[in-house]
Amino acid sequence: MIHAYAAQEPGAKLEPFEYDPGPLGAKEVEIKVDYCGLCHSDLSMLNNDWGLTSYPFVPGHEVAGTIAAVGSDVTHLSVGQVVGLGWHAGYCETCPSCLSGDHNLCSQADQTIVGRHGGFADKVRAEATSVIPLPDGVDPATAGPLFCGGITVFNPLVQYEISPTSKVAVIGIGGLGHLALAFLNAWGCEVTAFTSSEAKRTEALELGAHKTLNSRDAGELEAAAGSFDLVLSTVNVKLDWEAYVNTLKPKGRLHFVGATLEPIKLGVFSLIMAQRSVSGSPVGSPATIARMLEFAAAHEIKPVVEHFKFDQVNEALAHLENGQARYRVVMSH
Amino acid sequence: MIHAYAAQEPGAKLEPFEYDPGPLGAKEVEIKVDYCGLCHSDLSMLNNDWGLTSYPFVPGHEVAGTIAAVGSDVTHLSVGQVVGLGWHAGYCETCPSCLSGDHNLCSQADQTIVGRHGGFADKVRAEATSVIPLPDGVDPATAGPLFCGGITVFNPLVQYEISPTSKVAVIGIGGLGHLALAFLNAWGCEVTAFTSSEAKRTEALELGAHKTLNSRDAGELEAAAGSFDLVLSTVNVKLDWEAYVNTLKPKGRLHFVGATLEPIKLGVFSLIMAQRSVSGSPVGSPATIARMLEFAAAHEIKPVVEHFKFDQVNEALAHLENGQARYRVVMSH
Repeated sequence: MIHAYAAQEPGAKLEPFEYDPGPLGAKEVEIKVDYCGLCHSDLSMLNNDWGLTSYPFVPGHEVAGTIAAVGSDVTHLSVGQVVGLGWHAGYCETCPSCLSGDHNLCSQADQTIVGRHGGFADKVRAEATSVIPLPDGVDPATAGPLFCGGITVFNPLVQYEISPTSKVAVIGIGGLGHLALAFLNAWGCEVTAFTSSEAKRTEALELGAHKTLNSRDAGELEAAAGSFDLVLSTVNVKLDWEAYVNTLKPKGRLHFVGATLEPIKLGVFSLIMAQRSVSGSPVGSPATIARMLEFAAAHEIKPVVEHFKFDQVNEALAHLENGQARYRVVMSH
Repeated sequence: MIHAYAAQEPGAKLEPFEYDPGPLGAKEVEIKVDYCGLCHSDLSMLNNDWGLTSYPFVPGHEVAGTIAAVGSDVTHLSVGQVVGLGWHAGYCETCPSCLSGDHNLCSQADQTIVGRHGGFADKVRAEATSVIPLPDGVDPATAGPLFCGGITVFNPLVQYEISPTSKVAVIGIGGLGHLALAFLNAWGCEVTAFTSSEAKRTEALELGAHKTLNSRDAGELEAAAGSFDLVLSTVNVKLDWEAYVNTLKPKGRLHFVGATLEPIKLGVFSLIMAQRSVSGSPVGSPATIARMLEFAAAHEIKPVVEHFKFDQVNEALAHLENGQARYRVVMSH
């Protein structure tokens, strides 16, 4: 039996929940969960904001743990190995995206907490392809958030071959944004944080930003016209996106990794006149996750986390929901 | 004196107009206009739709002609050479865009018909950098439209390194779109034309499309989900852009070269889930224009044009405004 924490209906409190996972699949591994990050997507799924949730619902898709068992076909991972698991728990491995190394774009991919039970548990299972070993120098106690928040902001740097000579700005200094600042700083870029609070301004500079811009000040935004090669949005609120597009240099890109629900509205001229792009991407592929982990180890990049015990899981959810997390919550037993 | 055709106020008829261009600048050339294409932008400028027009206004930015004089600093062009001139009539040559070969993104670039007199005239002047020789095999009688309509649709193929294995769709089969079909066909791509009329369907197939899709049929659009690497919009009307974004494959791009005035509205999820991009670009650089001309010569790509004499210029404008041009109007003396 697996001992987990589950909600029985949308928005309900998490309560202890047991389930029988059945026999281990040939391509699966079972991970003993040592740590599991708490992501905004866990909250959205708990509340069924996206209409994707099935109940009982077990959150948790930022797992760091130890392999407890491997399926009969798994040869590249072994029991006792320290690994992580993120948003995806398996891929079709045969579609053009998978065959091109873009597993994270596989439309048939298994999602760890969609129609499956996640990592708020003593154990969790996933296809071996989606389970990535932690390299030396990556601490399991803080690694979980790299597997969703971290890869989500790291992946665009790889996808768009961002140059270290680029000037990059980050919108939203939270679970994703604080990792974006750290990665971009180590990547060699000049990093600007858009913030609207004085407290976050100081923190942003400590986290890796070289400069900050007050995003609530229309004048500051306007004065930044033509400044950035990349603006990375990690927020899920509606902003004046055209104003941000205009902060881009020629050939610049506004890239969304935050799942803003309200449609974006943009003038086409702002794109055409300076050959700008607007885009988005989800998490990253297994190969990119492995690259990120090595980069994080080399540059000693760690998520800034607060630890909660699993028996305080509802307090942890409330802490995140109230916007108090600095910057990511990690659960442990 | 230069003998031109000018409008004295927004929307006015064009009438004969003479002006003294003064001494030829050291970096300028004077072109004897043999042919000049008529572009939708000429109409927009004539009507001051973009608030950029000064009067008297001389349209014409798709010039093919013969160099009549060169300034004292011009060494790479000479009198008698057959050349073309497009949207830009000069560049600052010192900004990061110019220095990177992206002259068409220079924010200080001179625009042939903005604050200057264009090619509806016996002669027109421009900085030599913006004047490109026609290679053997490019006929001046049809070359004009390549310098604005042609480069506008050719440029994205270069900018985004579109692969010949790509599947590409074109929205709008007119002055720009018909050239897009021809270029994409020669580029090796599988080419789909979005059309809403049966007559244009047949023409699109003759112009280079391999397939057509009825863009007014929501079912056909939906059935095309995930089909295209690139969708090129050449129209200036409002469409259901999200429906077109959803016809893109993972990592696909919806690219605007048509100056749609109404803001585009898009769900961020459609971008994020498949790492899609939305972008735009204006004309192309001198180097890209030269590459286009060589490609057009090699593949015998010619704009499909209707010829009007300059003394019928108002009839020609009405013909374009009524949507009757098949597919580009070219003026000559």
